[in-house]
Amino acid sequence: MMHPELKNDRFLRALLRQPVDVTPVWMMRQAGRYLPEYRATRQKAGDFMALCMNADYACEVTLQPLARYPLDAAILFSDILTIPDAMGLGLYFETGEGPRFRKTIGNLADVESIPAVDPERDLAYVMNAVTTIRRELNGRVPLIGFSGSPWTLATYMVQGGSSRDFHRIKQMLYSAPETLHALLDKLADVVIDYLNAQIRAGAQAVQIFDTWGGILTQPAYREFSLAYMNKIVAGLQRESEGRRVPVILFTKQGGQWLELIADSGADALGLDWTTDLGEARQRVGNRVALQGNMDPAVLCASPEAIRAEVARILASFGNGDGHVFNLGHGITPDVDPEHARVFIEAVHEFSGQYHR
Amino acid sequence: MMHPELKNDRFLRALLRQPVDVTPVWMMRQAGRYLPEYRATRQKAGDFMALCMNADYACEVTLQPLARYPLDAAILFSDILTIPDAMGLGLYFETGEGPRFRKTIGNLADVESIPAVDPERDLAYVMNAVTTIRRELNGRVPLIGFSGSPWTLATYMVQGGSSRDFHRIKQMLYSAPETLHALLDKLADVVIDYLNAQIRAGAQAVQIFDTWGGILTQPAYREFSLAYMNKIVAGLQRESEGRRVPVILFTKQGGQWLELIADSGADALGLDWTTDLGEARQRVGNRVALQGNMDPAVLCASPEAIRAEVARILASFGNGDGHVFNLGHGITPDVDPEHARVFIEAVHEFSGQYHR
Repeated sequence: MMHPELKNDRFLRALLRQPVDVTPVWMMRQAGRYLPEYRATRQKAGDFMALCMNADYACEVTLQPLARYPLDAAILFSDILTIPDAMGLGLYFETGEGPRFRKTIGNLADVESIPAVDPERDLAYVMNAVTTIRRELNGRVPLIGFSGSPWTLATYMVQGGSSRDFHRIKQMLYSAPETLHALLDKLADVVIDYLNAQIRAGAQAVQIFDTWGGILTQPAYREFSLAYMNKIVAGLQRESEGRRVPVILFTKQGGQWLELIADSGADALGLDWTTDLGEARQRVGNRVALQGNMDPAVLCASPEAIRAEVARILASFGNGDGHVFNLGHGITPDVDPEHARVFIEAVHEFSGQYHR
Repeated sequence: MMHPELKNDRFLRALLRQPVDVTPVWMMRQAGRYLPEYRATRQKAGDFMALCMNADYACEVTLQPLARYPLDAAILFSDILTIPDAMGLGLYFETGEGPRFRKTIGNLADVESIPAVDPERDLAYVMNAVTTIRRELNGRVPLIGFSGSPWTLATYMVQGGSSRDFHRIKQMLYSAPETLHALLDKLADVVIDYLNAQIRAGAQAVQIFDTWGGILTQPAYREFSLAYMNKIVAGLQRESEGRRVPVILFTKQGGQWLELIADSGADALGLDWTTDLGEARQRVGNRVALQGNMDPAVLCASPEAIRAEVARILASFGNGDGHVFNLGHGITPDVDPEHARVFIEAVHEFSGQYHR
């Protein structure tokens, strides 16, 4: 497929630590419930998964924040739990409870009974969404594809949903590690195929969301989360349409392990707000770019406070390239869309001085 | 008051980095729902606060884990929210919801209307519990007193209870910082009086629980949590009964800021399990002792896994003194009491080799 030339490539350039005019910015969960137009489309679609599975609706909500704000990237609208759903676990959403699975993984027999998943075939709706969004983006900004990390997907598959203390999967980790490794290995292979299929369909960068890696000890993080992300990074197609496809790893609460994650082969690391961006930059040196890291709660504060926090974070990173501005976690439904605008505009307004 | 000589002072010695025969161990929330005898006493007492407010019951549950296990310290049975309750906010517990307050703090007028609290008078039930426990301990092991940190207490007072994203207090922090500082300053003064009163009543070490400091950015942590803990440490009576009264600071998810916390003047830092103990020791040098840091979820795994994890953590700290073994957070109600025994005995069994 021929694609129109990319008009704004700041985001891709920053991920590769190449010079940019201003710091690029996007927001995790930028297509989301804080936008009235999103709520309207979701109403039309029915439920959340119906929204993900219909390429036209998924495209519509992906583009909504771009119609409002001068964002530097679009991100595929989908869910991290599409893979376990394709594995037959039966994903559903309970109001106020978050994602749930009808079946869970408890032992090695459960792992071995997971059917083979071919993302091109079994997750065709995701690839259709990618293709549709790329067409409608028409070269305006790059499109980010994504997946959950094997460890993060496994937490939902073993716990059966969100968890507070993750006792079931930690019990498996400590008492039956070989079962967990079998599950994670299977997941890593599917994530590789899934992200490569997204890249073939048109994703121009990919992010791996390791939402729950930060609940582990350092050795357990290395063995059960990072090792499988390393395997994925090594298995990804890193060029498409004549350009490098940057890979971003984001382990929430992973600030203590940045040196380890920087050795993964990824191009960039996502940071939550608890990590000081300037210190992180010193620690990873010129090995990777950094993405982050404003606390999304700041968007509930006054416009003056939002602008002050953007200025503080930009100053913390300092002069030079290799920074993509983002929130440290997804934007929340209670945010006033005008506050999101203040945030995005402040990043562009204040960052030029650091890129001369 | 004359107290009998302390028979086991490993815990106090380790906090001051003095030589010990084996690594001392206690568990956060060691008097708790995982013990059937605790559940029985709580049933007798009525509700949770009735248990805290009755010195005989509080003493009974404090001593229960010591009757079962060779623990090296007792910790006062109480709640971190006694101070806001004494400030008239009306603490109550909703089943499955955790602590709640009838009144919350939303603005400067609310802060200014908080009545003065004299812990000796308004929290006399806590001091009675300390005195009773010391008498019944009869010098067996030292007694730890404690308080919540000002920031952690403020989160409950502003949010009205537990929270997931802490938007109300973060809105105050970013949009009305002077209101939050007024609240924190008032809390710090009361915490100083509260802990000094516990020390006068017989507490032989004190711990400040900063359960929610780890949800902040580094500059916000310094300004809104650590600064007030520093003030408290500077205001504490550090000697009693002819011995130093060690102070432990525990910021959950504070592993990125250990160097800063080590400058607080505290004798020891508590660590959760995400921080590598050996790396933490290198980072803080000989400024402070370290307390921690096994993931309480490990207690749900097999006895072999528990012993392996104890051995790993002891090896990570390595040879020498200045380590108090503990969990990285409170023990949970689903733990088999026999697994707690395996944990405690393994610490003593495996640690002698590191103290020669």
